Amino acid sequence: MHHINGKEYKCSVSVTLDIFNDRWKLAIIWYLLEENKRFKDLHKDISEITQKTLIVKLRELEEKNIIHREVFPEVPPKVVYSLTPIGAKLKPVLEEMYKWGMDYVEAFGQLSSDNLCGVDICQK
Amino acid sequence: MHHINGKEYKCSVSVTLDIFNDRWKLAIIWYLLEENKRFKDLHKDISEITQKTLIVKLRELEEKNIIHREVFPEVPPKVVYSLTPIGAKLKPVLEEMYKWGMDYVEAFGQLSSDNLCGVDICQK
Repeated sequence: MHHINGKEYKCSVSVTLDIFNDRWKLAIIWYLLEENKRFKDLHKDISEITQKTLIVKLRELEEKNIIHREVFPEVPPKVVYSLTPIGAKLKPVLEEMYKWGMDYVEAFGQLSSDNLCGVDICQK
Repeated sequence: MHHINGKEYKCSVSVTLDIFNDRWKLAIIWYLLEENKRFKDLHKDISEITQKTLIVKLRELEEKNIIHREVFPEVPPKVVYSLTPIGAKLKPVLEEMYKWGMDYVEAFGQLSSDNLCGVDICQK
């Protein structure tokens, strides 16, 4: 049994699942694996999300130590998001999920020519 | 955009996530990675699940071509569950999730001495 911030997890796979249960968070992590980004760039990457929801998701990921938020004292203030060391370690997990998903689609799905997922997330 | 059984997925990571959004399914896959199992053995592995729910989850995984159900004409009938080739390919995904979860717990959590997750799922 693991305890993290007062929450109980039966095993370490559940810990990971708790981060991944939210597709917005997954997308944020995916795009931050490319490079550190400002809020507006992330919002451009994930255009389907509302600004309000993006703020909430970023705050939750920050609270879980997955991402880091840095404010530069400029006018207007510049806010840059990056992955923490533990956040960056999610790369192989996402890569394996991506590979398996592609195998599954190849075996049982139909791939349309239009890829609405965004070039970066699907062609990596 | 991917289409699988009439459902739309924006990218292949979402396809994988759709399997993993359910912790019971994840546990079933994990235990079947050990070896092919009869219903009663799976129920012993995942003792917190009700028999009814286990039946539902197994059927859903079978419909998604992740597991295979084989009935042997014995008295009483013997039913053995195994992973399909695409189901067995989930191993690296689960392994990476497990590794990351352990790193995260090490960095931010507390690990109790009692491991309620079951020896197999947590010590692999």
